[in-house]
Amino acid sequence: MSFDFNRTMGDYIHTNIAQDNVSMVRLELGQSDQIPLRRPFDPLIHDLDPHFKLTRFADLKGRGCKVPQEVLNKLLEGFQQDENGHNEQSHFLHMTMTKIGIGMDAAVVPIRHGGLSLVQTTDYFYPLVDDPFIMGKIACSNVLSDLYAMGVTECDNMLMLLSVSTKMTEKERDVVIPLIMKGFKETAFEAGTTVTGGQTVVNPWCTIGGVATTVCQPNEFIIPDNAVVGDVLVLTKPLGTQVAVNAHQWVDQQDKWNRIKLIVSEEDVRKAYQRAMDSMARLNKVAAKLMHKYNAHGATDVTGFGLLGHAQTLAKHQKNEVSFVIHNLPVIAKMASVAKACGNMFQLLQGHSAETSGGLLICLPREQAAAYCKDIEKVEGYQAWIIGIVEKGNRTARIIDKPRVIEVPAKEKDGELW
Amino acid sequence: MSFDFNRTMGDYIHTNIAQDNVSMVRLELGQSDQIPLRRPFDPLIHDLDPHFKLTRFADLKGRGCKVPQEVLNKLLEGFQQDENGHNEQSHFLHMTMTKIGIGMDAAVVPIRHGGLSLVQTTDYFYPLVDDPFIMGKIACSNVLSDLYAMGVTECDNMLMLLSVSTKMTEKERDVVIPLIMKGFKETAFEAGTTVTGGQTVVNPWCTIGGVATTVCQPNEFIIPDNAVVGDVLVLTKPLGTQVAVNAHQWVDQQDKWNRIKLIVSEEDVRKAYQRAMDSMARLNKVAAKLMHKYNAHGATDVTGFGLLGHAQTLAKHQKNEVSFVIHNLPVIAKMASVAKACGNMFQLLQGHSAETSGGLLICLPREQAAAYCKDIEKVEGYQAWIIGIVEKGNRTARIIDKPRVIEVPAKEKDGELW
Repeated sequence: MSFDFNRTMGDYIHTNIAQDNVSMVRLELGQSDQIPLRRPFDPLIHDLDPHFKLTRFADLKGRGCKVPQEVLNKLLEGFQQDENGHNEQSHFLHMTMTKIGIGMDAAVVPIRHGGLSLVQTTDYFYPLVDDPFIMGKIACSNVLSDLYAMGVTECDNMLMLLSVSTKMTEKERDVVIPLIMKGFKETAFEAGTTVTGGQTVVNPWCTIGGVATTVCQPNEFIIPDNAVVGDVLVLTKPLGTQVAVNAHQWVDQQDKWNRIKLIVSEEDVRKAYQRAMDSMARLNKVAAKLMHKYNAHGATDVTGFGLLGHAQTLAKHQKNEVSFVIHNLPVIAKMASVAKACGNMFQLLQGHSAETSGGLLICLPREQAAAYCKDIEKVEGYQAWIIGIVEKGNRTARIIDKPRVIEVPAKEKDGELW
Repeated sequence: MSFDFNRTMGDYIHTNIAQDNVSMVRLELGQSDQIPLRRPFDPLIHDLDPHFKLTRFADLKGRGCKVPQEVLNKLLEGFQQDENGHNEQSHFLHMTMTKIGIGMDAAVVPIRHGGLSLVQTTDYFYPLVDDPFIMGKIACSNVLSDLYAMGVTECDNMLMLLSVSTKMTEKERDVVIPLIMKGFKETAFEAGTTVTGGQTVVNPWCTIGGVATTVCQPNEFIIPDNAVVGDVLVLTKPLGTQVAVNAHQWVDQQDKWNRIKLIVSEEDVRKAYQRAMDSMARLNKVAAKLMHKYNAHGATDVTGFGLLGHAQTLAKHQKNEVSFVIHNLPVIAKMASVAKACGNMFQLLQGHSAETSGGLLICLPREQAAAYCKDIEKVEGYQAWIIGIVEKGNRTARIIDKPRVIEVPAKEKDGELW
């Protein structure tokens, strides 16, 4: 491990990062005047080029970096070829763990002590927003989301994975990387956990991610295989983050902007982008807590394979003969129209548009779902939506022909965006 | 998390990877005739270009990818600026954990259950050898080594981190990535642990790494801060992996080869490279087990910052007023001469040459050290060396002016290399 954060508390005091940068960071974080509002990242304030964009340090964005599912399947095929004793062990695992690990967002591994299980996950990707602090928050929320999808609400430890782009100037690096780390760490703190270490390398593209680990008693996690006919499906964040992030970049690209300028205004796009950042940086922790309160039968988080991709994976691994039917698509305001105007590019309404740090898709008993949604709104001030039903079927998921699109407006906080 | 390996056992049977590749992999692994010997990776057998080299898929090699320590310190500086309650928490951590986490190879975090602690680490880097299977083994050994340095001998779970290079053809990807995964998984199996999941992305450079996690009772790990005057320093693997890996690449580069061709033969370099691969792929697990048997006072593993770099970090965090003095440098045969012929390039004899998956540097009671070395040789067939002493001092480490270089020959296994 290349660094441990505990160590920073004592050892790194006497280094000489420019105090100017630090002051500016504090200003952006609103620490100087005790007001929680935060100013958006401004490259000029940090003496960076006014056109500095974090997203330029990778050719792919966010979860778009993932190896496609079908390729991954092929690559993993090699694991079938074990003939020197491994089968015994995997067989052992399957016997004792009865499908634990199958189709889940996090690995669940029984440990040697006290009936406890290790639940852990890792994720890393490329910058998809230009504010480094927010990018750090999104990366942290995103990796924790895999635990929350399992109903796990406490994370015992986090590690951070970071690649500094070889194309960054030293100045850019010294401004941007500490802001990313700070965002990551703040969200970890908000989640009630700590970042104790990690790995930092140099790489052509900037990458950001982490590892989230917790040790659980059996009642602390919910194996996502227990949906029953009559359940309803709840989604805790709106769709459309990928569309919003792309539309925001197109504002500066005349040819692309022309494609959607009759559909949306710059102000619409700016609001959608803010809403997307706010949504991606938000923890699914309350959503996970309430899964226990309202007896959820299983959940997954919606990320790189889109709503339908993840719904299908969840459906596939159910114990009962059920299928998921999705009727409603809550989408960040105007982004459904933008997606439509772009033809087949996003496949948002078909359920294939990648999300980053998306919401939980939860199977809830029908009589509990409304209360779940009401409770999450009461606690967090964010809506959740009943988007579909669980019916008898062959473990598949589909979206109906003409789903209802629910326009989700940008979140206004204390009269200001973000 | 983008994939889980448990799932591969059932779900990925019916994909259509070319059976030819699989057969060739099995041939290389010696599975067809039950002989444990393994043939070196041959691109031709896999229908790849005969000049295919895994190391070409990154501009940096192995641990050379790490952000330099002084830059890292500067970047981590931002963590000092927390003024919204985080200090309290870190203070809490320091109080209750009495320096746990300081200068260690793995994070140690007390968890909510039964006096247990989570011990975990992560590491990833770029290919430094051209055999994908061996590369996978090295990456796995390397990440586990951080646990072993803490005296931890059991790993509860591993995750794998993999980036597929954007520059690989599909054919190259489909040959190389499963072999890397296989090597990683085999070494995990050898270590008595399993790989349950991970993340795979596409990236300009190929990267390979993982996460190793275990849950321990207090007597299962050894906090590396207890060296006392009179201890001796033991090293469990020879130095010189970086030199060997580079020299091996120079065989094909006339201008670089000219620099060292009067010092070593191609055969010398080939043997050194084999020894380096063998050494990097070897687990430090027995070394860790014997730390308990012989009452070790602390250890670290020698990696990217070189022998002296890691010795200094270990010395710095000792409770007692001690310093480390290193007299002997065990080096893969001929590599000390190669390093000398290259001027200041490697700084091998100065202790700064990066190692990948290097040995443990252990503080042992003087009367136990010889028995430790004898025992490790008996169990594993590999030598360990007493390389220095612990004396009274101000928590620093140094190598004496003219250290004795111990030439460590290539390991011959059953009459054949590797």
